[in-house]
Amino acid sequence: MNSAQLFDQIRKKKSFLCVGLDTDPAKIPPHLHDEADPVFSFNKAIIEATAAYAVAYKPNIAFYEAMGSKGWTALEKTIHFLKSKYPEVFTIADAKRGDIGNTSAAYARAFLQQLDFDAITVAPYMGEDSVKPFLGFADKWVILLALTSNSGSKDFQYLDAGSSGKKLYESVILTSSKWASHDQLMYVVGATHPDELAGIRRMIPDHFLLIPGIGAQGGDLARVAAAGMSAQCGILVNSSRGILYASSGTDFALRAAEEALELQSQMAQLLRAAKL
Amino acid sequence: MNSAQLFDQIRKKKSFLCVGLDTDPAKIPPHLHDEADPVFSFNKAIIEATAAYAVAYKPNIAFYEAMGSKGWTALEKTIHFLKSKYPEVFTIADAKRGDIGNTSAAYARAFLQQLDFDAITVAPYMGEDSVKPFLGFADKWVILLALTSNSGSKDFQYLDAGSSGKKLYESVILTSSKWASHDQLMYVVGATHPDELAGIRRMIPDHFLLIPGIGAQGGDLARVAAAGMSAQCGILVNSSRGILYASSGTDFALRAAEEALELQSQMAQLLRAAKL
Repeated sequence: MNSAQLFDQIRKKKSFLCVGLDTDPAKIPPHLHDEADPVFSFNKAIIEATAAYAVAYKPNIAFYEAMGSKGWTALEKTIHFLKSKYPEVFTIADAKRGDIGNTSAAYARAFLQQLDFDAITVAPYMGEDSVKPFLGFADKWVILLALTSNSGSKDFQYLDAGSSGKKLYESVILTSSKWASHDQLMYVVGATHPDELAGIRRMIPDHFLLIPGIGAQGGDLARVAAAGMSAQCGILVNSSRGILYASSGTDFALRAAEEALELQSQMAQLLRAAKL
Repeated sequence: MNSAQLFDQIRKKKSFLCVGLDTDPAKIPPHLHDEADPVFSFNKAIIEATAAYAVAYKPNIAFYEAMGSKGWTALEKTIHFLKSKYPEVFTIADAKRGDIGNTSAAYARAFLQQLDFDAITVAPYMGEDSVKPFLGFADKWVILLALTSNSGSKDFQYLDAGSSGKKLYESVILTSSKWASHDQLMYVVGATHPDELAGIRRMIPDHFLLIPGIGAQGGDLARVAAAGMSAQCGILVNSSRGILYASSGTDFALRAAEEALELQSQMAQLLRAAKL
């Protein structure tokens, strides 16, 4: 998927919502534990309930790996279900990988080829040759960590880096934005840093940003949109726990739909206000 | 396993060799493709052939994920085989994970609990709360990326960081070494940076270092030992491709054993010279 197709979907659905599939077997409704594959059954119900309101889905790979090979199978079924039933949605493997070249190439095969995700989140610490292998696939994306939503973002990402007066996260963006066009590269910027988000948008007016951290982590949607929107929307705002675990009863999918609709309604207003 | 037990094993085997299990189905000997699980059969033969010469094994998780759920099953069988037949060896999940707290906690469960590895490699970019969840397990280790062996290490790791005159990789070591003792925390330092390795050893005299990059990547064992050894050895030197793919014939395990023995012999000399 390219950025024009993504923007097109945003306009059609009047939404820039990404639903994070951080599916934790300990948190899914008890009645699902009778199913053959409770995690896949949960994901399928969540996707069906929210697909009208979301433009992207982002399985958080950690939660599947914590279940071993059964988890990997649930992940395979989830991405297959997404690709076959909702081919228009943008799919993100939230994996935060990054290693020496031949190893990154293996991760790229795993997520962009074998599982056929549209995008993968990548950590920048190991530099260009750790990121480049993920960029070798047509219409597939790297979403590079820039300024993350967590408190630990203060440990290294805000350090003055080099002699340019830039912070490390700014240096990561400036350097990496030369590695690929804004049709293959997005950045992760946490909703918990709205002021820095505005500065990042000035640095890179055309790149899409994947923005986690609203809801459980405390970020605010209207502030994020004001600071981060580009001329082509340019933001995907993620919500995970607020949607997935809105109810632990048999009404979980209905309640997830209501939460997603609430976010989509706010997003429709923000898009309208921005004349998009 | 604690550092005293690891050092004890190093003295017994007169080796500080870590065998990297970067098992690529496209590179294993053709005759193994008739086996039910060629990757596990390959790993088992490599481990049996080299266990006398190695103190640690390090499956590179990317190569297993590139095979999907079958790969994850091969990984489970490999770690189970290691733990049951060679309980004295140190096992490292080369995973380079790191995410917000609840996600890192899921990765920690996956690798340190479910798969029961002794250690996992972790990327530092997201800071303290992304690393801490991996530190909550007795006698289990975090091996944090400091200065990696690849060319991309120059992109960010060498940037002047903060106002202290330190490089980013030095800042990562200084900051993170306050998060845990040297009985729970090691660092990855590439063999391709022997001068910096000596500086790192002065900064942290007691921490173990995991050192990739000899062989295919060009690092030199004697230089690494001269620069990196501590009073309790303090280094694990990894070799992957040089051992695994020494032969693509039916003699692959024998040739792997010869390569591992050659490295172990050099290591025995280096340990003797250091009176360890």
